Amino acid sequence: MPAVIGLDFGTESVRALLLDAARGEVIGAAARAYADGVIDRALPDSDDPLPPEWALQNPGDWLLSMTDAVSTLLSDTGYPPDEVVGLGVDFTSCTILPVSESGRPLCAAPAWKSNPHAWPKLWKHHAAQPQADRINRVASDAGESWLPRYGGRISSEWLLPKALEILENAPDVYESADLIIEGADWIVWQLTGVLVRNSCAAGYKALWHAGEGYPGERFLSSLDPRLSDLYSTRLAGDILPPGHRAGPLLPEWRQRMGLSGDVIVASAIIDAHAAAIGGGSSVAGDLFMIMGTSTCHMLLGETEQPVPGIAGVVRDGIIAGLFGYEAGQAASGDSLAWFVDNCTPGSYSREAARLGVSVHQYLSELASELRPGGAGLLALDWLNGNRSTLVDAELSGLILGITLGTRPEAIYRALIESTAFGTRVIIDAFENAGLPIANIRAGGSLAGNQVAAQIYADVLGREILVVDSPEVSARGAAILGAAAAGLFNSVSAAAAALGTRIARTFVPRSQTHDAFHSLFLEYAELYDYFGRGSNPVMKTLRRLMRPADQ
Amino acid sequence: MPAVIGLDFGTESVRALLLDAARGEVIGAAARAYADGVIDRALPDSDDPLPPEWALQNPGDWLLSMTDAVSTLLSDTGYPPDEVVGLGVDFTSCTILPVSESGRPLCAAPAWKSNPHAWPKLWKHHAAQPQADRINRVASDAGESWLPRYGGRISSEWLLPKALEILENAPDVYESADLIIEGADWIVWQLTGVLVRNSCAAGYKALWHAGEGYPGERFLSSLDPRLSDLYSTRLAGDILPPGHRAGPLLPEWRQRMGLSGDVIVASAIIDAHAAAIGGGSSVAGDLFMIMGTSTCHMLLGETEQPVPGIAGVVRDGIIAGLFGYEAGQAASGDSLAWFVDNCTPGSYSREAARLGVSVHQYLSELASELRPGGAGLLALDWLNGNRSTLVDAELSGLILGITLGTRPEAIYRALIESTAFGTRVIIDAFENAGLPIANIRAGGSLAGNQVAAQIYADVLGREILVVDSPEVSARGAAILGAAAAGLFNSVSAAAAALGTRIARTFVPRSQTHDAFHSLFLEYAELYDYFGRGSNPVMKTLRRLMRPADQ
Repeated sequence: MPAVIGLDFGTESVRALLLDAARGEVIGAAARAYADGVIDRALPDSDDPLPPEWALQNPGDWLLSMTDAVSTLLSDTGYPPDEVVGLGVDFTSCTILPVSESGRPLCAAPAWKSNPHAWPKLWKHHAAQPQADRINRVASDAGESWLPRYGGRISSEWLLPKALEILENAPDVYESADLIIEGADWIVWQLTGVLVRNSCAAGYKALWHAGEGYPGERFLSSLDPRLSDLYSTRLAGDILPPGHRAGPLLPEWRQRMGLSGDVIVASAIIDAHAAAIGGGSSVAGDLFMIMGTSTCHMLLGETEQPVPGIAGVVRDGIIAGLFGYEAGQAASGDSLAWFVDNCTPGSYSREAARLGVSVHQYLSELASELRPGGAGLLALDWLNGNRSTLVDAELSGLILGITLGTRPEAIYRALIESTAFGTRVIIDAFENAGLPIANIRAGGSLAGNQVAAQIYADVLGREILVVDSPEVSARGAAILGAAAAGLFNSVSAAAAALGTRIARTFVPRSQTHDAFHSLFLEYAELYDYFGRGSNPVMKTLRRLMRPADQ
Repeated sequence: MPAVIGLDFGTESVRALLLDAARGEVIGAAARAYADGVIDRALPDSDDPLPPEWALQNPGDWLLSMTDAVSTLLSDTGYPPDEVVGLGVDFTSCTILPVSESGRPLCAAPAWKSNPHAWPKLWKHHAAQPQADRINRVASDAGESWLPRYGGRISSEWLLPKALEILENAPDVYESADLIIEGADWIVWQLTGVLVRNSCAAGYKALWHAGEGYPGERFLSSLDPRLSDLYSTRLAGDILPPGHRAGPLLPEWRQRMGLSGDVIVASAIIDAHAAAIGGGSSVAGDLFMIMGTSTCHMLLGETEQPVPGIAGVVRDGIIAGLFGYEAGQAASGDSLAWFVDNCTPGSYSREAARLGVSVHQYLSELASELRPGGAGLLALDWLNGNRSTLVDAELSGLILGITLGTRPEAIYRALIESTAFGTRVIIDAFENAGLPIANIRAGGSLAGNQVAAQIYADVLGREILVVDSPEVSARGAAILGAAAAGLFNSVSAAAAALGTRIARTFVPRSQTHDAFHSLFLEYAELYDYFGRGSNPVMKTLRRLMRPADQ
């Protein structure tokens, strides 16, 4: 029975999943942490502290952890190695590294290994904010046609700011880098010897468009003349939709991993977008929400529509032939973790321990006994800024309605509700732009909180199909492998067949939805008041935080 | 050497203070809790639960605890009993009880003791809110001239709503009550056999005015025809400014308490206002802030000015011949207590315990290391509504600027800052009305928090003179006793001589004041936006809390 492997390269570890390619059942899984983890204090073998906002990784870790995970997976499951026919890769993004023409990371060369700019910059490396600010200003002034596709503003996490950061701060590294490449594409290159880039990362993180290509050289020159050939030289390489055939797995990797037959490697995808495929998104109207520390909303559409404040729309970004829309909330589960870490009294922690449940579970159960509005609280979910639809990292969280009788579980619930309201704003923006949403699937740790999932259903007034999700990104990667190996006619067909099952459906209750609607109207008014400039107090507070203003 | 006794009747206990009447030094103090405490679950010897919002007391407790406290005080100090020449009383207010012509509490009569309306209603009995709402509506519609003196709105805690509550819910109790009287005046009556009412409680809580008297019968009739003679019959009795001579202590009380010489008992005062006198307020321009669970601001002025949103102005209300202005914040220390009880993580409690300090002290020390605006937070201090200048119990608290990096001490500090901003609004209202403020004294537990006191000085840009305050209300009562006994020409002179010393002066730092001023402007904008109707979300949330709306 044919099987496929999905490799999910995360922030701390890589997970390998072996999937039965006929029925979509998991045969086994294995994970391996990266030895150097997230490099945010000092380079390996160095005591020189890295500046704040830096986050790097070691590409050697990726290969070692991957090899170890796959060989362990095969030996643990005892699955016949020659029945593995496809392999797909998903990766965090934008995680980019400078490499030589042959694909050797600069950081692996003795001449460069002590220069932090030669190392892979992880998605959450935030030191390129000044570059992002300048790019946004210049692009906006020049009326660049690609800017509206990204909600009018690009993030410091993306490729162009990170590349410009290298150029400005380490021009020698920039000059010596033949190519700058996503970690995802670099892995595929290592596994196949073929350089292909995936249209998901290129589209969402590198400003590429299936029709228009990359931004023009004139724009790059206006940022810095030395940057003008960035796209034509350092980003060279064919761009393929995720799940196309990149090439067969090289024999040396077959041997290291313990595989024996022909294994076709697929063009890669970003991890969040892999989750949409793993979650079964396959046709226009499918919305997938991956609800973890933050939330990413991925919608498949037939047409390209401008959606104000949405992070990106990319043709072939998720499923070839469809437009992939991506929106996000910069904090969701993270807000609840913040609350548990900073605002939960010792008596609650002790009671949770006594009951043998997590503090989250204890608070959730108490919160489930409240009704919408019952505790008189309303929150804005901007504890990490607003990613969609305001695209403003300087916004911040708010809790309103506090009285001397306000209990911790009421605040916890208000924070959950606020993230559900934020999701409703995004869904409304999609629909108002003419993009129908046929169904909503959700995965991730926050979707696994049943109290939260029911609140989302009630707030949205829609069914929430919570998928069985522990390895949903890796499953998406495996599905790409199945499509690339020719087991299905398309990624869409593979996703429909092998997407994970629905673990539980949360059905909206109309009376509760009505009650939430009243609260949502209040949320929406505060959203506009604080988010759209009527009262810029949140930005003023950020400014006052900086000592220079004192 | 002559000495005087101050009796401070609080919510849970009575405190007796023996004060050297020459130098103002404390000779001794004793406190006794009330056996029945606050009666808010069921009447003594009854299992019938009281409704929510109810709070009663047992007048027998007052007498027993008072007698025990004074006799203990005298025996413990060994002070010559015949040198005690005066006695003053302060009391919570509005705490009222229905009594017979002879002063016997109805609740002490077998016929009435099982009727809760026959018992003293404590200041914080809040069940008369419907009556207060109706009184406010009717008075506003009729353009009653007394209404502006109370900021345009009276509280459910005051005499008229409580009396109307008795009439409407227990007309037989109302009919059988010859008089309705403040606890303070009832104590003085018991001690002297003379019925006098104090102009402080009459003015602040019963709508009496030195020039105009009480509201007219027509207004009372419009509320309920049976109420028309409330003032002329049930509130009969001369009204004296605090610290006038009510009469000598009756021999039976001298004996019970262990006193021997002539002791002159003074007309009484409300406890908060006693604190102003105990704190040394004696001339126009003196502002005293009693900062405990809530904050009360008492300002002496030469003239009667309307101050929008201020709780009351009463001639002779504190010091005879001056106008006493009272404003307040419904929660100050209570907000911090709420935070410690509900939002402080176990790790903080454990660290405080390890250091041997209170959680408040631990948080305060961490908070003191932050600078104004340094944590990016701003709060509205309305966790128990806004008493001044908005006079709106339905407003609620707000915390804005929360991020995933927000620490508990930053929220704690923001709550302190918000109460200081609220005080600044009140001070600005006084000054804008043409009432000069010459100095600010402060007492109470929150003033004893040095971090808070410095924040107040910096926010207000004024010196804060923190008085030595553990018994400042009882000291004020004792000062009234000294004045009534003729040891001074006036209460003002007695207060100037015997007011407590300044324990510490907090001096504003101009740079910090400037930084706070920027934050205050943001506070003021939110204050108006949420407090004056631009966005009534806080009231909407209160409405949505009530199940009937679901």
